[in-house]
Amino acid sequence: MLLVSILVSISCSSNTLPEKEIVEFTLEIAKDATPAVVSRILQADKKPISEIRFEKGTYHFYPDKGYEKFCYISNHGDGMVNTPFPILNKENLTIDGQGSLFIFHGVIIPFLIEGSTNINVKNVSIDWYQSFHSEGLIVANNIENKTFDMEISKEYPYDIRNGEIFFIKEYYQHTLGQSILFDPKRKGISFNTEKYTSITTKSKTSTTFNLDNIVYKYEYDKRDVGNKNIGVERRVRAEELKPGLIRVHGHKKKIPPVGNILSMKGEQGLNRVAPAFRVTHTKGFKGTNVTIHHAGGMGIIAENSEDLLLDNFNVIPSQGRMVSTTADATHFVGCRGKIILTNCTFQNQLDDASNIHGSYQKIVDVLDDYRIGVRMGHHQQKAFVIGRPNDNLGLVRLSNSFFPYKQLTIKDIEYINNRYQIITLNEKLPNDIKKGDLIENLDAYPEVIVKNCKIGNNRARGLLISNPKNTLIENNFFNTEMEALLIPVESSHWYESGNAANVVIRGNTFQDCQHGGKNRGVIRFNTDDDNKNIAFKNIEITNNIFNQFDNLILQVTNTNGLVFKENTITNSGTFPQLYPESPAIKIEDSKNIKFENNTYKGKAPNLIEADESMPDITFQ
Amino acid sequence: MLLVSILVSISCSSNTLPEKEIVEFTLEIAKDATPAVVSRILQADKKPISEIRFEKGTYHFYPDKGYEKFCYISNHGDGMVNTPFPILNKENLTIDGQGSLFIFHGVIIPFLIEGSTNINVKNVSIDWYQSFHSEGLIVANNIENKTFDMEISKEYPYDIRNGEIFFIKEYYQHTLGQSILFDPKRKGISFNTEKYTSITTKSKTSTTFNLDNIVYKYEYDKRDVGNKNIGVERRVRAEELKPGLIRVHGHKKKIPPVGNILSMKGEQGLNRVAPAFRVTHTKGFKGTNVTIHHAGGMGIIAENSEDLLLDNFNVIPSQGRMVSTTADATHFVGCRGKIILTNCTFQNQLDDASNIHGSYQKIVDVLDDYRIGVRMGHHQQKAFVIGRPNDNLGLVRLSNSFFPYKQLTIKDIEYINNRYQIITLNEKLPNDIKKGDLIENLDAYPEVIVKNCKIGNNRARGLLISNPKNTLIENNFFNTEMEALLIPVESSHWYESGNAANVVIRGNTFQDCQHGGKNRGVIRFNTDDDNKNIAFKNIEITNNIFNQFDNLILQVTNTNGLVFKENTITNSGTFPQLYPESPAIKIEDSKNIKFENNTYKGKAPNLIEADESMPDITFQ
Repeated sequence: MLLVSILVSISCSSNTLPEKEIVEFTLEIAKDATPAVVSRILQADKKPISEIRFEKGTYHFYPDKGYEKFCYISNHGDGMVNTPFPILNKENLTIDGQGSLFIFHGVIIPFLIEGSTNINVKNVSIDWYQSFHSEGLIVANNIENKTFDMEISKEYPYDIRNGEIFFIKEYYQHTLGQSILFDPKRKGISFNTEKYTSITTKSKTSTTFNLDNIVYKYEYDKRDVGNKNIGVERRVRAEELKPGLIRVHGHKKKIPPVGNILSMKGEQGLNRVAPAFRVTHTKGFKGTNVTIHHAGGMGIIAENSEDLLLDNFNVIPSQGRMVSTTADATHFVGCRGKIILTNCTFQNQLDDASNIHGSYQKIVDVLDDYRIGVRMGHHQQKAFVIGRPNDNLGLVRLSNSFFPYKQLTIKDIEYINNRYQIITLNEKLPNDIKKGDLIENLDAYPEVIVKNCKIGNNRARGLLISNPKNTLIENNFFNTEMEALLIPVESSHWYESGNAANVVIRGNTFQDCQHGGKNRGVIRFNTDDDNKNIAFKNIEITNNIFNQFDNLILQVTNTNGLVFKENTITNSGTFPQLYPESPAIKIEDSKNIKFENNTYKGKAPNLIEADESMPDITFQ
Repeated sequence: MLLVSILVSISCSSNTLPEKEIVEFTLEIAKDATPAVVSRILQADKKPISEIRFEKGTYHFYPDKGYEKFCYISNHGDGMVNTPFPILNKENLTIDGQGSLFIFHGVIIPFLIEGSTNINVKNVSIDWYQSFHSEGLIVANNIENKTFDMEISKEYPYDIRNGEIFFIKEYYQHTLGQSILFDPKRKGISFNTEKYTSITTKSKTSTTFNLDNIVYKYEYDKRDVGNKNIGVERRVRAEELKPGLIRVHGHKKKIPPVGNILSMKGEQGLNRVAPAFRVTHTKGFKGTNVTIHHAGGMGIIAENSEDLLLDNFNVIPSQGRMVSTTADATHFVGCRGKIILTNCTFQNQLDDASNIHGSYQKIVDVLDDYRIGVRMGHHQQKAFVIGRPNDNLGLVRLSNSFFPYKQLTIKDIEYINNRYQIITLNEKLPNDIKKGDLIENLDAYPEVIVKNCKIGNNRARGLLISNPKNTLIENNFFNTEMEALLIPVESSHWYESGNAANVVIRGNTFQDCQHGGKNRGVIRFNTDDDNKNIAFKNIEITNNIFNQFDNLILQVTNTNGLVFKENTITNSGTFPQLYPESPAIKIEDSKNIKFENNTYKGKAPNLIEADESMPDITFQ
């Protein structure tokens, strides 16, 4: 039985290394392609591969014989993961699905790419046999009793234990947990869902005994997975009215309207276990003509990598599901070189289309003249290594400035554990360094281009950009439930570094963004440190169309240098206005903000609301 | 500040290697000794250490700056663990506490010893600041309403969430879970606790929907941690009557009597996270003058190691706690060379004093003439690698025989994941090999000596011996709640290999064992495969004293060759008899069993009950 046929690659080198092979898999391995693929990749050091091709068709992948490796994955659960494609320390490898559909079963990471160079994945669709979320159609509700009834289809098996519903999948289960409403007519997030969701699953328990007796010597992260359930109990109760029909009691917000679909994905911290692509410490990754229909986490999470190109790389739901990926479509942490997203569609994922940022780490020990002990601030950044030898580190004291007060270079990083590392610098530490100061890697930011992409129907934002290098956002379409573009400094909880500069936003269409119900700008700048320091510089917003149902378009804060020109603002009338009193533009703690040649056809009673930092600014 | 003073070791070699140092830590690091110890050990490759000494005193160890490493640990939870003593690939290293007490905080493994040679740990006591179990004094009960009330002292903080009690510790929490009664007067397991415990915390849920829709392609372990809660809900409910006083509703067995202490350690599969010593792939480990007062798991778990000597290595509770370690005092899997336990006290641990066995793995794929794919059968043996190149593997088909039908040698083992490995043999596989056959490593059994040890007051057994080499159990004292000695083949669920042979049991005192309430022999042979095949050979039980409150002394099955002579059996009168009709000795499916010169002063109405395999045997 011929499972694998082998061709000699014409692209391989002719030196003493063994010739690289093109490996072709046929549909004979389709029932579980994992063992054959793993086996061949594990031999690649002795029998190098230039390309792995799949005969066009549908292939299943199970974890039972998948390759395992422990991974700390930014913004995902950490642990021993399982993959059919262990692309570890490989060079110049192409995986070509030739139009195939790969169907994954259970907790498995389709593509695990680490420490590699020039990896291409193309012409493949990725889906899961059973999803990591579940969907329920709201078929009845009772406003007085504060209950609603959900119809659960047979594709979402469940059990109920002591009033709590668990959705059971192959190799996985989840509770109701994080949830949001979809409108099946629009196949997108329901208008004004914020009023109804997330379902309020938790409340404080009144019965605790002597918890104060527990005193921690070091900083303790109450929000970490193992800790956050202390003193918290379940407030909603699931009752089965008949098989497949569930009544939910105890929800505190407004009761979801009939006809909506509630997507449920289980508890935060436990519900991101299987991103489609995990790329780390890799130089050169291309994803071309790839469609990710689902993942139990992000479409792609890239960390500490360089030169990443996604072209016609899409996140789109399948099988009648409202949801595509259960977290961000794409996410980049501490990446450098170029990040290019072109011709992509990112739809129906349960978090942002992209989030691009660095990492702050906190100085907790000054060990000697050259060495600091640093702590990973957020539990989903555990084990993140901030840079390489000779990278420029900035020392940041956010109470004084968003910009570093001192620059030093890395000599060495000693990994102790997922929360603690010891960094040795090439230069002496400044005398005024203090515990509590942050570090950021000034070299680990990218040149970003997002072009010709279609983003919408998803929960949360379009693009989050925390990038002090150059960012071009051009000719995209946004229809997001929260901000289309959020430009933040997220220091206090998320420890996501990068105070944006040199951002060009042009030629985009913003269609009915913020329809989830928050009173925020379609484009919003934000720092979570409460001060007037400048965080953002040199921003250009030109030639965009804002076709919005509500007023607030642009929210600027802590910015020096922003031009908003030749934009057209109209009112779409798609939804009723939620905040008719809001202005079109809000400005705080900023300078050098200019408006030129814009067209306004919206409904805002005041176009600009500015604080004392720019009292005389006018819209033009 | 002098934290570390350095002496040149007189034992170091004089070749070109750097001279080995004796590192001396003083009490200046006592508040958290972890970072100083970790830092020095991590430098040991460049600055080798012959000995680490601690100034006598009390040292605290926290996980925050501990060294982390992923460990699969047999019969424990698996995961990223944290240690202050990462003894990884070290040679000829002594750690001398010089009489110090080491107090550990949270989930941390005191001594992690892997891939090393000649490691000695001596003169140290190990304790935890907060325990991994909790204790409640039964102060009232209501037999009619089936409730009991527990007084919880301030050292066991808790909260109650939706009727479930969680005991909260530094860095850890547990539910009621697995439990057993202690008698505070005897400071041991309560007489007849089996009637009352474990508290029946779980029952089946009646509400499940379409779970049959989930079909697994490969073998699926329903008992694994992620799976066993499906279709199961909590049946007991905790109600706080006042702070520190808890009423438990819903227990199904007999209601625990007032005055007993209920030890609770949380759910099976989640409650073994911090053994005191983890030793693996190590040749030569000595623990001398060591006392383990507590651990969240075993005192020592050793795997794939060789020549292990525990001398005056004790497990004894402290701080008024009923419980010492929350699992076995000692446990050895797949070890070879010598295992010697002398002058040890193993008391009040929540599982066996020692369990010594190999591992069965199941053949699930016959890949070609030389390669098999094997599956790890039990979820607490995940990732266990069965041997090294050239070890003798036995192929076993238990339905036919407990002994291998074929012997082969290992060429290579390819680790794929924690449940699946591919083993290549040096010899061709036999034609009649079948999926479902087991393998065991015939070389990975030890010479065992257990001598001058005191074992009792603990849950479960004294010694479990599954060892076909030689075992000497001499001059020990046993006072165990279940069997003092269990000689099993545990193939069907535990996959613990080793059909015992050449076991000498002499000069021991068995005092009131099996007081937990099971009608089983003090010494018991058992196979969990239901057949008449011989599993045990050449057993000698001589010159022991059985001072028991009840009748059943010896239970023999599937044995060929056992001599029971010069033993003295008396009735202690310590507890009322539970099974007055039982014989002293039961024999099934055995041959060549001999009784000589024994003295019987017990109360059994019939001394021997034998099946048709030895109908005419008499006690002498």
